[in-house]
Amino acid sequence: MDSDFGIPRELSPLQQLRSQYQPQLPPCLQGTTVRVEFGDGTTVAKSGDAHIIARAFPHTLGQPLAHFLRATAKVPDAQIITEHPAIRVGIVFSGRQAPGGHNVIWGLYEALKVHNAKSALLGFLGGSEGLFAQKTVEITDEVLQTYKNQGGFDLLGRTKDQIRTTEQVNAALKACTDLKLDGLVIVGGVTSNTDAAHLAEFFAEAKCSTKVVGVPVTINGDLKNQFVEANVGFDTICKVNSQLISNVCTDALSAEKYYYFVRLMGRKHSHVALKCTLQSHPNMVILGEEVTASKLTIFDITKQICDAVQARAGQDKNHGVILIPEGIVESIPELYALLKEIHGLLKEGVHADNISTKLSPWSSALFEFLPPFIKKQLLLHPESDDSAQLSQIETEKLLAYLVETEMNKRTKEGTYKGKKFNAICHFFGYQARGSLPSKFDCDYAYVLGHICYHILAAGLNGYMATVTNLKSPVNKWKCGAAPMTAMMTVKRWSQNSGSTSIGRPAIHPATVDLKGKAYELLRQNAQKFLMEDMYRNPGPVQYDGPGADAKAVSLCVEDQDYMGRIKKLQEYLDQVRTLVKPGCSQDVLKAALSVMASVTDVLSTISSSSTSGQQFA
Amino acid sequence: MDSDFGIPRELSPLQQLRSQYQPQLPPCLQGTTVRVEFGDGTTVAKSGDAHIIARAFPHTLGQPLAHFLRATAKVPDAQIITEHPAIRVGIVFSGRQAPGGHNVIWGLYEALKVHNAKSALLGFLGGSEGLFAQKTVEITDEVLQTYKNQGGFDLLGRTKDQIRTTEQVNAALKACTDLKLDGLVIVGGVTSNTDAAHLAEFFAEAKCSTKVVGVPVTINGDLKNQFVEANVGFDTICKVNSQLISNVCTDALSAEKYYYFVRLMGRKHSHVALKCTLQSHPNMVILGEEVTASKLTIFDITKQICDAVQARAGQDKNHGVILIPEGIVESIPELYALLKEIHGLLKEGVHADNISTKLSPWSSALFEFLPPFIKKQLLLHPESDDSAQLSQIETEKLLAYLVETEMNKRTKEGTYKGKKFNAICHFFGYQARGSLPSKFDCDYAYVLGHICYHILAAGLNGYMATVTNLKSPVNKWKCGAAPMTAMMTVKRWSQNSGSTSIGRPAIHPATVDLKGKAYELLRQNAQKFLMEDMYRNPGPVQYDGPGADAKAVSLCVEDQDYMGRIKKLQEYLDQVRTLVKPGCSQDVLKAALSVMASVTDVLSTISSSSTSGQQFA
Repeated sequence: MDSDFGIPRELSPLQQLRSQYQPQLPPCLQGTTVRVEFGDGTTVAKSGDAHIIARAFPHTLGQPLAHFLRATAKVPDAQIITEHPAIRVGIVFSGRQAPGGHNVIWGLYEALKVHNAKSALLGFLGGSEGLFAQKTVEITDEVLQTYKNQGGFDLLGRTKDQIRTTEQVNAALKACTDLKLDGLVIVGGVTSNTDAAHLAEFFAEAKCSTKVVGVPVTINGDLKNQFVEANVGFDTICKVNSQLISNVCTDALSAEKYYYFVRLMGRKHSHVALKCTLQSHPNMVILGEEVTASKLTIFDITKQICDAVQARAGQDKNHGVILIPEGIVESIPELYALLKEIHGLLKEGVHADNISTKLSPWSSALFEFLPPFIKKQLLLHPESDDSAQLSQIETEKLLAYLVETEMNKRTKEGTYKGKKFNAICHFFGYQARGSLPSKFDCDYAYVLGHICYHILAAGLNGYMATVTNLKSPVNKWKCGAAPMTAMMTVKRWSQNSGSTSIGRPAIHPATVDLKGKAYELLRQNAQKFLMEDMYRNPGPVQYDGPGADAKAVSLCVEDQDYMGRIKKLQEYLDQVRTLVKPGCSQDVLKAALSVMASVTDVLSTISSSSTSGQQFA
Repeated sequence: MDSDFGIPRELSPLQQLRSQYQPQLPPCLQGTTVRVEFGDGTTVAKSGDAHIIARAFPHTLGQPLAHFLRATAKVPDAQIITEHPAIRVGIVFSGRQAPGGHNVIWGLYEALKVHNAKSALLGFLGGSEGLFAQKTVEITDEVLQTYKNQGGFDLLGRTKDQIRTTEQVNAALKACTDLKLDGLVIVGGVTSNTDAAHLAEFFAEAKCSTKVVGVPVTINGDLKNQFVEANVGFDTICKVNSQLISNVCTDALSAEKYYYFVRLMGRKHSHVALKCTLQSHPNMVILGEEVTASKLTIFDITKQICDAVQARAGQDKNHGVILIPEGIVESIPELYALLKEIHGLLKEGVHADNISTKLSPWSSALFEFLPPFIKKQLLLHPESDDSAQLSQIETEKLLAYLVETEMNKRTKEGTYKGKKFNAICHFFGYQARGSLPSKFDCDYAYVLGHICYHILAAGLNGYMATVTNLKSPVNKWKCGAAPMTAMMTVKRWSQNSGSTSIGRPAIHPATVDLKGKAYELLRQNAQKFLMEDMYRNPGPVQYDGPGADAKAVSLCVEDQDYMGRIKKLQEYLDQVRTLVKPGCSQDVLKAALSVMASVTDVLSTISSSSTSGQQFA
């Protein structure tokens, strides 16, 4: 199989057209002069985590933000890099495939070659396992030819999203040393970028000269924080899923006899489901974050759906579409507890067949209650990030089964007099994940690839490539890099004994912000969506004509640009410093002191209260 | 619910763009003068069926083909219709929803209003049940506004595809009489158009003045014969399915660990699967027609897939994509026999729970062997056309289960040494059926709608609207109408007693032609598709730019234009008649006689041998 990676292949007419599409670059990345401006040193998101993260990252914590500027930008202390020695860079797909991933390679390759034609880019074949085994292909124009703007990760392939054990990090170190790499670019989601951060620290400690760079590429859209507005692949996956959800909505409304239960890929959190709901207006969505916030049990959720079915039947509507994020199974308290018990027993080496006899009475009662198909799926071994194999657990079928049972009961009791409830179940994920990337994802990934080069040219280690102001056209995008340690938090669990267990510092997936604008939009419309069939079909992804530049709703609804604001703040501080230079009048100094005292007062109060629980939409 | 039909609704930006798209008309339908040329009276496809069909259709059999011509066409005996009194027409969605269906309404409405602004079009709400109950909405510009070029059947809705029982046809007759309809247009697939043909005959017999017209609209693509090249909806469904299949191909190649078993909606025959295979190049497809031709058992098919998995593992390929048409379950002899037994018992009133004890020993053994989920699905009541509920029977899961069992066995025996086989199952149908229609389906449906008017203006009853030369641009399309009786055949079954049972004359679904060019293309490439991962992604349906006019492979591969050839033949015959008019030389007459004698000789020989078994690709 390996010999097949990166081979040219036959493209369909649309693929050919797409392969000829040339993404734009923002002005700051055009030309061959790199200007970097460094901000203040970064801190961590929660001050309570600081000492734990400091202990884990003695070399890479507290590094400054980096902003890449256009050659003509008038920033006095920006560093101008004019020498571009030939460098050798490796790139690896470490996470699950996401549409647009190939363009990171392309962008990086272009930037490398523009600055020094002798630079080389090696792609690791077959993901992290290819990294450990030092299996590479040198990226060339020919290799890229049929992969530009194309979906999947099949140019290089991928395996597991893990570079973590001692054995694995040592193998990575050896690979980078043996191959004389100046940089290693790791493409993936939260888990892969966490690993990238730890690897950067490990390399620094080992005095390895390879710099590690992370790139936020994941369909889950959960690698979001102050520095990262969006993930490559998320736009496409939401567009394709919305297309399909809208199609089943139209189908439901035409046939008027089925309820479609649609489970959506997207890991633990419900970003994909929220975004698709805002696009397609299905009747209902059960967000994991709502379930967690309201501590809903599986029976509460069942009742909620049944009541909706009954209310709709009262208006002679016997059809509907209900979205269920795949991660919901971990948000439902009693199912999560059951999963944890099962995973604990699996770890102890108990065979799946014997687990049911070893569960606690409470979990055992729940387990016995569940239909056989779901039992089998709950017994699967957990993923590399310790979560359940969400894509294999058919929660939509479980819910459809429970709702059907309850509706039949209500019919028997005479409390429901509507037509027989009929459910059809779907899982949308694989059929979207391999899609041709949207124009946005093509552009975003290509630009991130370029930024990776600039990070390496600036000699930075442990950084993630970032683009902000994404809701604007490409020529307004702001390019930068943020230390991955600044995105880290620490999880604590209380143990039975009363003590607290502390997790490894990690870039944790962001939850859907229940106070955010996107969620607010959903809540405002939820009742209308439920009862009035306001289905809306965004249609298939378009590459030409007015439809091609459709932007993500969440990007447009939310005003993020954290990086921009940090820069703006710096400007204010600089202005104060200039205005209140030694020699200024006593009055000015007094006024400045008084104002700044109250400013710092307010900020410390806010900071100390916001350290507990932080969410990003 | 009814009050919601036809209400304006919010459209997405792409839907809005599409709602403004104006399909072209071929030259023959432009303007307000209709010119009809009638061909010879039609015969039936199989001469052996003639007397049975004649008995069933004393009034509507043998009617001539009709060709609609441009106003300037120089055809001396074409009938020119200049008077266009106001007429009242009803339209009903009788089959399953297919993308483009709304445009039939639009086209018909436009044609009615262009020829007489006082004409009225009534849409029956909720399918055939709305027809029986006389629930209508008058079609207006406002009603159509948000449904032009949109998917689904939700403007009117649909119920069951049946207008057949005495009660039903009487209700239809009463509706048409009460509503004073001059025409009734029935939109649907083989079953609905068969019902339309019988209804036309019934109306003629009852001296009801309502003329019945059929329109070939079905995603299955199986309403194909000499007169009908393609069905509205088939192009879209194949494009959306191909998009999704290609996406899972890319996904398979990126992750390299799963076999995707994809079942495709499309009823008994494998047109959708063949078309999608030619678009996407998955590793394997099991066509129902191949299974029938080779009399493959479920175990033969399992072995075929296992051998493929093993061969691929030998090349270190542990992933793949396999397409399975939903109808295959009725093509596998022993499963079909089992289904027939079950349906027989269900008809006798045996409860599903007791059926397993009443099966013949052979069927019982097979039934007991099957996994529980599939048993439950096989016990479902059959559809209105007596076929199994194909969309509910998860054949892809059955095959994945059998293949996994066999691969585990081979591993144990040591005959298979590859990686563990992992399957993921999909059913693609509902998520494609509600799609925005492709440009082709928009155009085709709109033109068919116009033709419906012309059929009614010419006073024809029991005709289907037809367009031929579809592979060419719209301005080369040829418009006509064919009597539905000319598409009828009769099925015969031998009974246990040795006698033969004869079915009701019907438009039977066409099978995939195993001697056709499309299938030949598949066979030429099957081995490469299987081993070399020649995956190809046609991408999402495009509406702008060069991708928007992509035509169906099967339309392009196959040279059909039967209607065109029939016309050409008439021209030759007319020429002979002109050349050999009384007064011509003895030599010319002799030569003509001799040539025509051998021509008729050859044709009668061919005709008699071709009456048994006819297939259309």
